[in-house]
Amino acid sequence: MASQALVSSPAGIAGALKAGRVRIAVVGLGRIGLPTATMFAQGGAIVSGVDIDPAVVSSVTRGVCHFEDEPGLGELMSKVVAEGKLKGFLEYAESVSQADFIVISVPTPVDDTKVPDYSAVRSAAQAIGRSLQRGSVVIVESTVGPGTVEEVVQPILEKESGLKAGSEFGLASCPERSDPGSIMKNMVNVPRVVGATTPQCCDVVAELYKAAFGVKVVKLSSPKTANAVKLTENLFRDVNIALANEFALLFEKLGIDTIEVIDACATKYNFMPHYPGSGVGGPCLPSNPYYLISEGLKVGNIPYIIRLAREINDRMPDHVVELALEAMNDIGQTAKGAKVAVLGAAYKPNVRDVQLSPVEKICDRLRGMGSSLRIYDPMFKDEDVFGIRVSASLEEAVKDADCIVIGTAHDEFRRADPNILKALAAKRAALVDSRQVFDPESVRRAGFAYRGVGRANTASL
Amino acid sequence: MASQALVSSPAGIAGALKAGRVRIAVVGLGRIGLPTATMFAQGGAIVSGVDIDPAVVSSVTRGVCHFEDEPGLGELMSKVVAEGKLKGFLEYAESVSQADFIVISVPTPVDDTKVPDYSAVRSAAQAIGRSLQRGSVVIVESTVGPGTVEEVVQPILEKESGLKAGSEFGLASCPERSDPGSIMKNMVNVPRVVGATTPQCCDVVAELYKAAFGVKVVKLSSPKTANAVKLTENLFRDVNIALANEFALLFEKLGIDTIEVIDACATKYNFMPHYPGSGVGGPCLPSNPYYLISEGLKVGNIPYIIRLAREINDRMPDHVVELALEAMNDIGQTAKGAKVAVLGAAYKPNVRDVQLSPVEKICDRLRGMGSSLRIYDPMFKDEDVFGIRVSASLEEAVKDADCIVIGTAHDEFRRADPNILKALAAKRAALVDSRQVFDPESVRRAGFAYRGVGRANTASL
Repeated sequence: MASQALVSSPAGIAGALKAGRVRIAVVGLGRIGLPTATMFAQGGAIVSGVDIDPAVVSSVTRGVCHFEDEPGLGELMSKVVAEGKLKGFLEYAESVSQADFIVISVPTPVDDTKVPDYSAVRSAAQAIGRSLQRGSVVIVESTVGPGTVEEVVQPILEKESGLKAGSEFGLASCPERSDPGSIMKNMVNVPRVVGATTPQCCDVVAELYKAAFGVKVVKLSSPKTANAVKLTENLFRDVNIALANEFALLFEKLGIDTIEVIDACATKYNFMPHYPGSGVGGPCLPSNPYYLISEGLKVGNIPYIIRLAREINDRMPDHVVELALEAMNDIGQTAKGAKVAVLGAAYKPNVRDVQLSPVEKICDRLRGMGSSLRIYDPMFKDEDVFGIRVSASLEEAVKDADCIVIGTAHDEFRRADPNILKALAAKRAALVDSRQVFDPESVRRAGFAYRGVGRANTASL
Repeated sequence: MASQALVSSPAGIAGALKAGRVRIAVVGLGRIGLPTATMFAQGGAIVSGVDIDPAVVSSVTRGVCHFEDEPGLGELMSKVVAEGKLKGFLEYAESVSQADFIVISVPTPVDDTKVPDYSAVRSAAQAIGRSLQRGSVVIVESTVGPGTVEEVVQPILEKESGLKAGSEFGLASCPERSDPGSIMKNMVNVPRVVGATTPQCCDVVAELYKAAFGVKVVKLSSPKTANAVKLTENLFRDVNIALANEFALLFEKLGIDTIEVIDACATKYNFMPHYPGSGVGGPCLPSNPYYLISEGLKVGNIPYIIRLAREINDRMPDHVVELALEAMNDIGQTAKGAKVAVLGAAYKPNVRDVQLSPVEKICDRLRGMGSSLRIYDPMFKDEDVFGIRVSASLEEAVKDADCIVIGTAHDEFRRADPNILKALAAKRAALVDSRQVFDPESVRRAGFAYRGVGRANTASL
């Protein structure tokens, strides 16, 4: 059952979508794959969502979204499932063999030694290759190092299918550029970047995303260029956060408030503000740099700044612990025996995700030194996080605490009053703010021994 | 003759300026000092410009501007001099003793070992201190490390004047944030940042700039905070250019066009584009990082990324030479004996300034290897640059050249046609573009052996 996708006229795609004549298989129904499948279905395609996790497939089939923190996703997904436009599958064969486009959206983590682990991409490519039909187009959305699509994915697909990329099936990179918590918004607002092995295939894929998502598309000269774009924009963030952290560490010692500095810099036209904190977490920023470092090592060209930025960001949790020890020292309290309330476990505000969250390292070290930990995070209720039962409320976590560590800038914490926290906490208590949730003066006035990442902490001595 | 500046009501400053009752001494009439003096005079102040160079003082007194490349400066300066609002002085005593505000705008370079050289600031502070009157306000506009105003300038002023900063004279930092070539525009558009030793003095200085320049002012908690702002915003640029260079060096080896990548990244809301090149020059970016590194070393806190960025940017001229050798190799030409036309000597486009220009290093190395060099730069006519007489025209420089190296993206070069350059050059010729002046394909089509910083150079082999 050959597909016409590769040889179709790009101009005809919008019409084919509207007529329900485009079939898409999305492989991987995670935080990106599920919204992608949903958006393609909403755009008119008949979508098969393939995942190796039976629980995920079953919830998709029932129209129940397994992410609670993506505004707009749950409703839209239920709708397209109810309309019969999106179905879940555990097996590849039927979905792939009928699909005009097969989208790979599987995780690409790094292992413990920071080496990229493309095993999910390889497995997906093998399974897809076995059922791939002439004329179909494979699109890699997963974030990979530049060259991985050409040198890893393409040979597997060609070997398994017996077909040739370019002439017999299409192969493109269209890396997702969405930010967890804002994915549905980003999918229609942030232009897509597409690179393919042939210009014709690039045109077709560009037209598909334009028509289905209503989004702008930037056409690039190759898959590796598209993957380089994805990494470059994420590494820009990681490096600039590391730079903010570097300023913070120095300015703390010079008695300068880094936040005051950065806010003032932001009044200049050619500055973009990034803020210091306890480090960088989540599925992208802590791992993406290693995809590029790995490609760099292969050609003998180590990206120094990028590697250094990783190391600086990875050490920030230790700095937060140092500030906690210092603040507790002010009130004559050791970490051993201290009741420490950690507010926020997620790696970023208002997201239910603790993947590589720097807060975990903070908790581990304080626990290792003998502190008694409570964690409160409004995104996690009645469950364990970092091996600790999450407190039922902010009040419960803070009650009688010797030290409060703010780990995540959730909205609930921004609305909290330092005076009320102080009334709940122990008579002498410390507060460490790693995320600029509170104005330092308001915390000091409330009576806390205060430390903040990047703040003029010596001013409180 | 005591001044009322320090104890004046900030609200009254606009009126006093309009009535011609505010006297300002600007110390240092360089690229920043002269526009500053001119703008204050235009804003209603009676301004004395003090400089140690008799030629500068004489030209200011005659109303002749010694910068040709600052749009809007020459006309405005002639006007305020003709109106008697700006005069040049070699001596400090009269100007300073009569001034309500004394602005320090002297150079702060780094020495050969990258140690900040504040000798001009110290000398100015000494001379100002000797004539400083009770109630006057000293404003440091020069870029210095955070703490330099409090720990270097303040003690000198206090010792020489016998007055106390804060209560008997005002002391503030208001670092300039202008970009050479756009200074007159920046002075009215880019908000000023002010930090002073007392809040009252900060208010007065903020009001002075607001009223005289018509610019927004951000008030900060201390002079060192203001100096940190200036350094942070410039270091952000230096680091991000180094990051672009790091991407360029790697992407060249991976056969990816860095410019295509960066332009695509720029379509994302949280990315700011910076481009690779032959390095970083001028009076600010190559030296500013060392002011902060120097303060960091004092407190045992080395800013790693910032230092690394300097090293990466400083090595880029060597990379341009490497590309030139490679391109000449393609046409069977050694550097020894090659006629090389270097287009552009200035450190940035459309500015008459070769201060720390990376092009000088490129010229030095090629000359050292035995190339015969011509330089053409439309901003320099009938004079020597880097010890070479500048060619009278682009055509003269390029005629029979074996290799063309584009060092600066002057508008004249952007308008040039690679085909015409090829017709002028030697039969077999190379072209190295360090500043993305030409589209790589157009240069290759014209028949050059091409290399560009950050380009997919291997594609031409």
